[in-house]
Amino acid sequence: MLQSAVQEEKLVSNEAEGKNDWKKWKAERKEEKKKRKEAKLIKQLDKRRLNEEQQNEQLLQEQQEKSNGRQYTVSIALPGSVMDNAQSPELRTYLAGQIARACTVFCVDEVVIFDEQGEDTKSVEGEFKGIGKKGQACVQLARILQYLECPQYLRKSFFPKHQDLQFAGLLNPLDSPHHMRVDEAAEFREGVILDRPSKAGKGSFANCGMRKEVQINKQLQAGLRVTVHLNKTQNAESKVHKGIVVAPHTPRTEGGLYWGYSVRLASSLSNVFTECPHKEGYDLTIGTSERGNNIDCVTLSPFKHMLVVFGGLQGLEASVDTDQDLDVTDPSVLFDLYLNTCPNQGSRTIRTEEAILISLSGLRQKIVTAFMDQKA
Amino acid sequence: MLQSAVQEEKLVSNEAEGKNDWKKWKAERKEEKKKRKEAKLIKQLDKRRLNEEQQNEQLLQEQQEKSNGRQYTVSIALPGSVMDNAQSPELRTYLAGQIARACTVFCVDEVVIFDEQGEDTKSVEGEFKGIGKKGQACVQLARILQYLECPQYLRKSFFPKHQDLQFAGLLNPLDSPHHMRVDEAAEFREGVILDRPSKAGKGSFANCGMRKEVQINKQLQAGLRVTVHLNKTQNAESKVHKGIVVAPHTPRTEGGLYWGYSVRLASSLSNVFTECPHKEGYDLTIGTSERGNNIDCVTLSPFKHMLVVFGGLQGLEASVDTDQDLDVTDPSVLFDLYLNTCPNQGSRTIRTEEAILISLSGLRQKIVTAFMDQKA
Ligand SMILES: C[S@@+](CC[C@H](N)C(=O)[O-])C[C@H]1O[C@@H](n2cnc3c(N)ncnc32)[C@H](O)[C@@H]1O
Ligand SMILES: C[S@@+](CC[C@H](N)C(=O)[O-])C[C@H]1O[C@@H](n2cnc3c(N)ncnc32)[C@H](O)[C@@H]1O
Repeated sequence: MLQSAVQEEKLVSNEAEGKNDWKKWKAERKEEKKKRKEAKLIKQLDKRRLNEEQQNEQLLQEQQEKSNGRQYTVSIALPGSVMDNAQSPELRTYLAGQIARACTVFCVDEVVIFDEQGEDTKSVEGEFKGIGKKGQACVQLARILQYLECPQYLRKSFFPKHQDLQFAGLLNPLDSPHHMRVDEAAEFREGVILDRPSKAGKGSFANCGMRKEVQINKQLQAGLRVTVHLNKTQNAESKVHKGIVVAPHTPRTEGGLYWGYSVRLASSLSNVFTECPHKEGYDLTIGTSERGNNIDCVTLSPFKHMLVVFGGLQGLEASVDTDQDLDVTDPSVLFDLYLNTCPNQGSRTIRTEEAILISLSGLRQKIVTAFMDQKA
Repeated sequence: MLQSAVQEEKLVSNEAEGKNDWKKWKAERKEEKKKRKEAKLIKQLDKRRLNEEQQNEQLLQEQQEKSNGRQYTVSIALPGSVMDNAQSPELRTYLAGQIARACTVFCVDEVVIFDEQGEDTKSVEGEFKGIGKKGQACVQLARILQYLECPQYLRKSFFPKHQDLQFAGLLNPLDSPHHMRVDEAAEFREGVILDRPSKAGKGSFANCGMRKEVQINKQLQAGLRVTVHLNKTQNAESKVHKGIVVAPHTPRTEGGLYWGYSVRLASSLSNVFTECPHKEGYDLTIGTSERGNNIDCVTLSPFKHMLVVFGGLQGLEASVDTDQDLDVTDPSVLFDLYLNTCPNQGSRTIRTEEAILISLSGLRQKIVTAFMDQKA
């Protein structure tokens, strides 16, 4: 801007010299025009360069953020029948809580609950009949897992009073990073879209468990659960916070944060594999059994989506038996690895809820090593 | 015997020759005597050699058995206060059961329950006041751990109906190798000395949970708990089985069997160390904390007696604070190793009962490696 204003001034004084040297003047004007064009070009190029630099910087920052992120996922699967081993309605609830805690401690991204009863394909659908009742184990377990995963401030919105949550007071909290306290500073927050009109062209309001509501960048349907990336700088005077809606995996893939698990129901063991939410499927599948191979003799390679499958009271053999889509009797053939994660166990039998903690603890170190080797 | 009978015969025939050659006869007798002495010596030497060979063979066998055996022990310690975190009397009992199961799964030999309340040194003594009551947590935890460790068929003898065992029906069995079923063939069995007179010079009778009673090799006081090595061959006609009493550690040190845990109460954290039952003390002590060093960066050396210590709701810092015999504030200085056994945990806090399974699973593999290197 400054440069071109100076050029205009020059132009005016040239004109004042008179028209006697027309040719000279014309040539000069041509020259000026050329210079102005050049200057404009330089300006444009500068601008573009600046843009490019900014973009590069942004990209670099994004990449750096991504390297803090975790690109792989861990899923576990177990039969809902484990609930039927509990000896009282309270302990049935507590067992579900133990499973939820184990998943949280080891940053499990997806829990799949499969039906190994096989009699009734409806067993993973439909309404709950109260936590004390036998059967409906899959749905009950799923409901409690979802309830616990949901940040406390959103539970009123997503979990109306329900019979199968009657002993929820006994459950230990997950204390996961996405369970924010009200005044906690956070880059990401889970929220629910509020049923409140916002002006045309402006985004909806969400309750993210903060003292103020958050206005997001989009109009979304009331009642939806959203993951919000809060703007870095907020106007302290404003009545609302500002943020943009991101994919639920963003806190993990960009921030490296553990962001809770999703829950999926499968009507059989084989559907655990076939209904995988990742289009590439699970690329590392592990079955667990006391008859598996010694975990100490195994190293893992980097993977995208790991699945670890646990059996119920009768082991994975029983799950395979009741699956009409599976011809096999030996579960080990279904998996990339079939592992005994507790060689020399001092008890004749390890319970599924114990096996989850034990196995994920044993695998944790092997996962670290797999991805460390990749970085090196 | 045969040889010396032959010599006597010879002697008699010599005598019959008459006394005319007295000198010759005397010389011959002297010679015979010498030979007999020599023979006797040879016999004795032979016997000794045989004995030695037998003893050597026995020793070798014992050593071979011992190499199947496990020479090291693993102890864990935790504050009784963990019981006070449970949200109902049933869950208080269940929590104790979880700890007992974790110890069994990982072949823990000793559980030490220490008082971190510090107010009342009597808190590890005295009677129980019912499982629902706060306080007395150490004694209640100890009682339930002992109850679960005791083979079912001995419980009537050692655990009369008691208020703190009122929810024992909810407890999951340990299913440890020393919890024999009635018809199970076994080299070792736990038993209780019966209150029944046995003939002088004969051993007492014990109930070892078999269809017949076991007569042991000693007279012992009725009511004592004993570990019995059953004779390899039993007379099927006999009304009793036969066996000899061995030390409680024999199934472990000679047979490599996990044989349950002992329970010890300590009135403070420091007494966990000072009252160690092994005269050499613990030669590998590990404290656990989320603020500990990354377990992945640690290798273990062979040890005799390992101790792994867990904190309660407030961590080991709280246990150190209330211990009047300890001047330190940083618990890490008390231990050979201070370990974070779950790096990158997805929950802000891991509960003690979870930390036991997680930590022992992480350490198991390192223990295996420590003793494998020793063998190689
Ligand atoms: C109660 S156990 C199943 C026991 C069943 N009798 C069997 O023989 O498999 C329940 C589940 O815990 C897991 N589990 C138990 N022991 C295990 C071990 N040593 N290693 C790995 N997983 C184990 C398996 O997933 C198993 O299906
Ligand atoms: C509820 S935690 C204690 C939490 C307490 N706020 C602290 O900061 O230590 C109870 C016990 O579990 C064990 N624990 C918890 N997290 C652990 C970890 N990451 N590594 C090793 N032990 C852990 C420790 O023994 C701890 O004292």
